[in-house]
Amino acid sequence: MKKNKPTKKPVAITMGDPAGVGPEIIVKALQKLIPDRKTTQNPQLIVADPGIMEKAVNRFAGTGFKKMFRDAPVFEKPEQVENPAPPLALYSVGRLDPERMRPGRPGGKEGRAAALCLEAALELVQKKICRALVTAPVAKAALAAAGFNHPGHTGWLAQKTDSRVLMMIAAGKFRVVPLTGHVPLERVPGLISASLLASALELLDQELKKWFRIKRPRIAVAGLNPHAGEQGTLGEEEIEIIAPAIAAGRKKGIEISGPFPADTLFTPERRRTYDAALCMFHDQALIPIKTLGMNRAVNLTLGLPFVRTSPAHGTAPDIAWQGTADPESMIRAIKLAGQRS
Amino acid sequence: MKKNKPTKKPVAITMGDPAGVGPEIIVKALQKLIPDRKTTQNPQLIVADPGIMEKAVNRFAGTGFKKMFRDAPVFEKPEQVENPAPPLALYSVGRLDPERMRPGRPGGKEGRAAALCLEAALELVQKKICRALVTAPVAKAALAAAGFNHPGHTGWLAQKTDSRVLMMIAAGKFRVVPLTGHVPLERVPGLISASLLASALELLDQELKKWFRIKRPRIAVAGLNPHAGEQGTLGEEEIEIIAPAIAAGRKKGIEISGPFPADTLFTPERRRTYDAALCMFHDQALIPIKTLGMNRAVNLTLGLPFVRTSPAHGTAPDIAWQGTADPESMIRAIKLAGQRS
Repeated sequence: MKKNKPTKKPVAITMGDPAGVGPEIIVKALQKLIPDRKTTQNPQLIVADPGIMEKAVNRFAGTGFKKMFRDAPVFEKPEQVENPAPPLALYSVGRLDPERMRPGRPGGKEGRAAALCLEAALELVQKKICRALVTAPVAKAALAAAGFNHPGHTGWLAQKTDSRVLMMIAAGKFRVVPLTGHVPLERVPGLISASLLASALELLDQELKKWFRIKRPRIAVAGLNPHAGEQGTLGEEEIEIIAPAIAAGRKKGIEISGPFPADTLFTPERRRTYDAALCMFHDQALIPIKTLGMNRAVNLTLGLPFVRTSPAHGTAPDIAWQGTADPESMIRAIKLAGQRS
Repeated sequence: MKKNKPTKKPVAITMGDPAGVGPEIIVKALQKLIPDRKTTQNPQLIVADPGIMEKAVNRFAGTGFKKMFRDAPVFEKPEQVENPAPPLALYSVGRLDPERMRPGRPGGKEGRAAALCLEAALELVQKKICRALVTAPVAKAALAAAGFNHPGHTGWLAQKTDSRVLMMIAAGKFRVVPLTGHVPLERVPGLISASLLASALELLDQELKKWFRIKRPRIAVAGLNPHAGEQGTLGEEEIEIIAPAIAAGRKKGIEISGPFPADTLFTPERRRTYDAALCMFHDQALIPIKTLGMNRAVNLTLGLPFVRTSPAHGTAPDIAWQGTADPESMIRAIKLAGQRS
């Protein structure tokens, strides 16, 4: 069986909110990915509540995957996970009653289950037992009901690992990074500062080199205002803050262009001219990438001591557990995590 | 020659800034459109400086169109324009020296020429000599240098006709309308009000019925904040202003949905669920439509007493008079004006 010996440590995949689309898209994604030899060479470790996961497998998997899941080794402690054989293993966390879980309507119990999976998976990557982390979507309200108060994966991971991070959404070679995140729009102009831009540009340059092996990353920076302020007539942040930060970054040797009007920065022609676009706020980054088709987009956290990806969508409560969820974004998240770690 | 008798009044097409791409895209667009029988049935009236237009024809047209241009009737006063024979006529305004015009570098003379064309064309549509207006792009700085101080076509036309207007950008059936326009982003939250939303929703509903003959238009409204404010945790405009305005509009019988998170409102699936999206600010509307390909987009002014369209791009000084400008957006602007008037 030497041929099957794993060459790399497993990728940890968290279940996400059990009442959301997480369990379904994990099953569908792995079922599609595992026949692929590249993925099969390395094990995927599902970090999940076993009863919920079994329910998802029974409902959404074909015969082959059902057998594979039954035969997969099950771990409960980090020290048990020692280079499991590919393609699949389960890290068992919690014990929800799958019959009492209401699809699309998570409560505190579901929130707690999602949080436990996340904490367990973080331990596995921090102890270098797993080599990368893929997270299925969580429901913020359910997490909060479980006393797990955090605006989302990205911020939580940053805090736990004491890292300065950036969120990137990538669809193939089209990559966008919002400089500011989940804040009211009226707060955005006040948050844009020279120091925030400087650290983001530096981190983005580093991570494009490290993650995507781009020798000399080309970063395009969007303006904040319509027409990038049109020489100050439609706003002054471009002149006063953004352009000087770009000039400073260039002096450090980073290849940066802009600030560009955001409306024309994402046309098919322009997308080919940069490796990543640094955007000033959440929707400026997410509108173009999701407009092109959400299922192609993958969420990445840059700046962590390990690779972390996730699908670019949420728990989709309206379609959870109905068999209609599209696993494409999860497939790309798992692939990307495997390739880049 | 009865067969060729025009069935409709001409569409007036303004030259735009002579140093921009306007003259080139007019020539290319008409050359492509005129062989089409539908367009040929009705005359196109180019409102332009004759020397500039002749230069563009000589440079960018084929033999057939050159002859057609030479044979076209030339008018200089409104009363001369009386149902000209299709396909083409020229309304002559000004007399620039085409040899002294520097492509891509318009000055006050060019600005004045563009303004004169615009004023002449407005007179023609207001006197109902022409049935619709198509405007090629103008250079704001050149207009200002000519003492023509206005933020652009849309605002100027609104003022001249004393109309309450909305800008719409349409690419096929995907239509977006920004509620606020050319203002710094930080001013946007303060501009969004119940009364602005009420009048925009009403006007949009009316105009979708009138222009696009949609019996019961479906209007989707975007939120202002990320995730449309996420129940007030990421901003309160959705709860306090936007949702109540939607409810009020529904009571008037308008089919409105939202406020929706802007990042997922423009996915391929979601675009099919509405006839127009009302967006809160410039880039929120223009990013999705231009991301899909600028050359498909057409700019329309809703609320004027006549039909007005234009290409969705600017004067493109970097490529003006080089023969590389894509006329597709102008082609669609001329077609749409012809169909809808």
